Amino acid sequence: MSHIPTTVIIGGVAGGMSTATRLRRNDEHRTIIILEASGHVSFANCGLPYYVGGVIPKRSSLLLQTPEALKQRFNLDVRVNTRVVSIDRDAKTVATEAGEVIRYDELVLSPGATPFLPPIAGIECAFTLRTVEDVDRIAAAVEDKKKAVIIGGGFIGLEMAENLHHRGLEVTLVEAAPQIMGPLDVEMAGIVAKHVRANGVRVLTNAQATEISETRVVLQDGQELEADIVIAAIGVRPASELAQAAGLEISERGGIVVDAQQRTSDPHIFALGDAATKKDFHSGADSLVPLAQTANRHGRLVADVITGRETASLPVLGTAIVGLFGLAAAATGWNERRARAEGKNVRVIHLHPANHAGYYPGAAQLHMKLVVDAENDAILGAQIVGEEGVDKRIDVIATAMRAGLSATDLADLELAYAPQFGSAKDPINFAGFINDNIARGECTVQWHELQGRLDSGALLVDVRSPQEFAAGAIPGAVNIPLDELRERHGEIANHEDVIVHCQVGLRGHNATRLLNNLGYDVANLDGGYLTWVNGQEE
Amino acid sequence: MSHIPTTVIIGGVAGGMSTATRLRRNDEHRTIIILEASGHVSFANCGLPYYVGGVIPKRSSLLLQTPEALKQRFNLDVRVNTRVVSIDRDAKTVATEAGEVIRYDELVLSPGATPFLPPIAGIECAFTLRTVEDVDRIAAAVEDKKKAVIIGGGFIGLEMAENLHHRGLEVTLVEAAPQIMGPLDVEMAGIVAKHVRANGVRVLTNAQATEISETRVVLQDGQELEADIVIAAIGVRPASELAQAAGLEISERGGIVVDAQQRTSDPHIFALGDAATKKDFHSGADSLVPLAQTANRHGRLVADVITGRETASLPVLGTAIVGLFGLAAAATGWNERRARAEGKNVRVIHLHPANHAGYYPGAAQLHMKLVVDAENDAILGAQIVGEEGVDKRIDVIATAMRAGLSATDLADLELAYAPQFGSAKDPINFAGFINDNIARGECTVQWHELQGRLDSGALLVDVRSPQEFAAGAIPGAVNIPLDELRERHGEIANHEDVIVHCQVGLRGHNATRLLNNLGYDVANLDGGYLTWVNGQEE
Repeated sequence: MSHIPTTVIIGGVAGGMSTATRLRRNDEHRTIIILEASGHVSFANCGLPYYVGGVIPKRSSLLLQTPEALKQRFNLDVRVNTRVVSIDRDAKTVATEAGEVIRYDELVLSPGATPFLPPIAGIECAFTLRTVEDVDRIAAAVEDKKKAVIIGGGFIGLEMAENLHHRGLEVTLVEAAPQIMGPLDVEMAGIVAKHVRANGVRVLTNAQATEISETRVVLQDGQELEADIVIAAIGVRPASELAQAAGLEISERGGIVVDAQQRTSDPHIFALGDAATKKDFHSGADSLVPLAQTANRHGRLVADVITGRETASLPVLGTAIVGLFGLAAAATGWNERRARAEGKNVRVIHLHPANHAGYYPGAAQLHMKLVVDAENDAILGAQIVGEEGVDKRIDVIATAMRAGLSATDLADLELAYAPQFGSAKDPINFAGFINDNIARGECTVQWHELQGRLDSGALLVDVRSPQEFAAGAIPGAVNIPLDELRERHGEIANHEDVIVHCQVGLRGHNATRLLNNLGYDVANLDGGYLTWVNGQEE
Repeated sequence: MSHIPTTVIIGGVAGGMSTATRLRRNDEHRTIIILEASGHVSFANCGLPYYVGGVIPKRSSLLLQTPEALKQRFNLDVRVNTRVVSIDRDAKTVATEAGEVIRYDELVLSPGATPFLPPIAGIECAFTLRTVEDVDRIAAAVEDKKKAVIIGGGFIGLEMAENLHHRGLEVTLVEAAPQIMGPLDVEMAGIVAKHVRANGVRVLTNAQATEISETRVVLQDGQELEADIVIAAIGVRPASELAQAAGLEISERGGIVVDAQQRTSDPHIFALGDAATKKDFHSGADSLVPLAQTANRHGRLVADVITGRETASLPVLGTAIVGLFGLAAAATGWNERRARAEGKNVRVIHLHPANHAGYYPGAAQLHMKLVVDAENDAILGAQIVGEEGVDKRIDVIATAMRAGLSATDLADLELAYAPQFGSAKDPINFAGFINDNIARGECTVQWHELQGRLDSGALLVDVRSPQEFAAGAIPGAVNIPLDELRERHGEIANHEDVIVHCQVGLRGHNATRLLNNLGYDVANLDGGYLTWVNGQEE
């Protein structure tokens, strides 16, 4: 009788379970054992905050599969509450906490990540959110609570802030960095911070928690925040201890190093999901991208590799989105901060178009940012914030990036237009047009460069209407409305450095072209007054 | 003094006005004259039906620009109610109806299209919808009307049906073809027809109007439809008469033939928009694609070409979308009918995923169809119908097509996931997965092939639950629920041709893999019961 191979999978959520079910579809005869440390497999990680908030009313909605159903449908041997404590690579076995030793032909590591807990006094009083057990604990704890402090202004921290606010708690969010939402640049994060604040959540940036107790959180500046409940959502670390103890290669940031077939440094052991490294789309460097999409995709891939198919995982962009109080914020690829840190010569574009035709009721403003490699017109990354149509635009740009389209190519994308859905010139097309204009020599100034230029004597011309100018203007600007510029351009003739701006950048572009054609060297403030204002929010 | 060039533009809506404004930004000194036959420039064509329906309440919302504002901002010489009656190519002049002769250096033809009126008796009683004047006539006429008949089940006809219904009229839509919405294949159009009917519009297909009067429409089968108002929305024809009279090259289907710089057969005359031919994305053949997006894009391009920039228009996919009673229907590229007519060996995929994570409230079902070239995995086209997330998915696929991604590449697109916006395995990724499975040998049967296979003795196994089977099944199917198939597969052992199916295709895929692994040749009904049912709607 021939040997029936056994695949052991550690971790039964996104990556692990995708591996298991695909593996069964590829091979009916193999033994497939899933060892899950928590009490649940295939649960809806990304839904946990919404169950806390009551947006997802039923706990059962989070539990997408049971071990019994998976046995019935896929003949999987799923063992929950089963923690693996060691891997013996020579013997090809794993040992569980309960002392069981299980032999494998291939081992798949999909243990996920664990919440990072910094060494703050009293951090053990803080709740974390990762498993169904975590959410049960939080749900029980918030019952009679009034004030919550959330430490960490990333995606999970912000989602928890919204959901606890939705439950009626008074919520303060504490972020140690100068901005919330690290994947965004500061002026884009500013839009989100403003919106979250406007919806009643107190957001503190540059705020370092130094002490936590059951009634309060103390900040480095001495400020004390009352807190009936404290949530730590500071980030996650790859759960790579087991792999490390087994002598597998681990990256500097703690991820299990894998190749394009998701193989670890041991050819019989695969790793995927939040615990494994990914290749960065632009640099190819090992990086950590704890996203469900990649975990699921790589599960399918690992199963295919195990059953003998030649296939390879692709570098990752890290496309992500979060919804907060009706606002969506999304990013893909590198932000400006990262691109500059990587030494890129960046071309940055901000625009604020409506999500669909303005003449159709319900149009809402999008805030978009494109980071482009000025050397080769490659799209390095994008960030979009707005109420509607954000997910669509980030997905289109992520697709364009994956396919190697240039920023100027965005001008020619043929996107679906009817007035409820978009514009004849879609925001994506507009981004391409603006990029094309700048690539061909039109000068722009970034919001964070403006003050330096003004300090050096630049003239700032606000080409908006007198009404707009009166309602709020950049200090030092003079107002020459665009429609008067053809007659009044003499007023700028004696200035060496002239910057024009409007509300969002479009009239500024028209002014720039007009003045260029009349022989003036001028620059347009990229993204206009609105981007500048967004950059002022903390 | 040097010669100041004059560009004359015929037509002041999407393409013409995009040309004019870009041209001014490129060149402050040129004379730019826009001659518009109707009384309005830059009006919102695509918004007209919604003004009739009252969805756009203010007529002024349709009028995006005035000649005065365009003079002020862009120094454009805009002349409305000015119809050009002839072009003298030798003299480089155009003559207006009023007898004025205007000299040009470059002439740009952007006259749009005109509604097609077939030779039906009484067709002059029908209203058409193309200009602001048309919409004023209809708005005045519907005031006290009760019953409307719309002839033509394309985008405009359907939008008018919704809007007149919204105004309280009893609406019958008459379509001569066997299906509404020609860009969709019949089983996809069936979903739309069912939805429009469910919302109270009577939809007649295979219905040819033979006589129209002020009180009724008579059909070929003798049926008489009462009608206080009749709208003809049968399609449009390029307004190429002027170009033809001037001896410019005209395509077989009546479009003004242009090259990649939008130049007509006269190097001093450009054409764009609905009147000009486009190159088909797949075949490169001259085609007509009357869409605002392309017109706007080509306006920018024509201005750039005129001012000396090397640039070229791209072949068009014809991406389009329509919203009807809360349902969106979108298409890009070729449908299956077209692909087969072009002789392609097609691989067709139907899927019916939720638009976002099912555990988050408000998930709605999408109906997606992908048409793939089986020879090279190229995406030939896609069709999507559903309540939410349709525009996003069609735009992603259109972008993938433009960039030359293959159908299998869709599996690896990294799209933004949070439970409100998508799924960890996005519908787009799923389409890629399914394509990959089929490309690697998994057999599927199309809904329209099923009856033939059953007639030849195939066994159809419905792997859904007994409850689903009892609620409605395909005639002749036997029910073996997926979860029992591992034990009961012996029941199919004596059948040579076995087809399995479930509700949408996913469990059918699991069944197919299971049976394949057990040594059976079986095929999965693509898109499951749901696609089959959609194919039964007229």
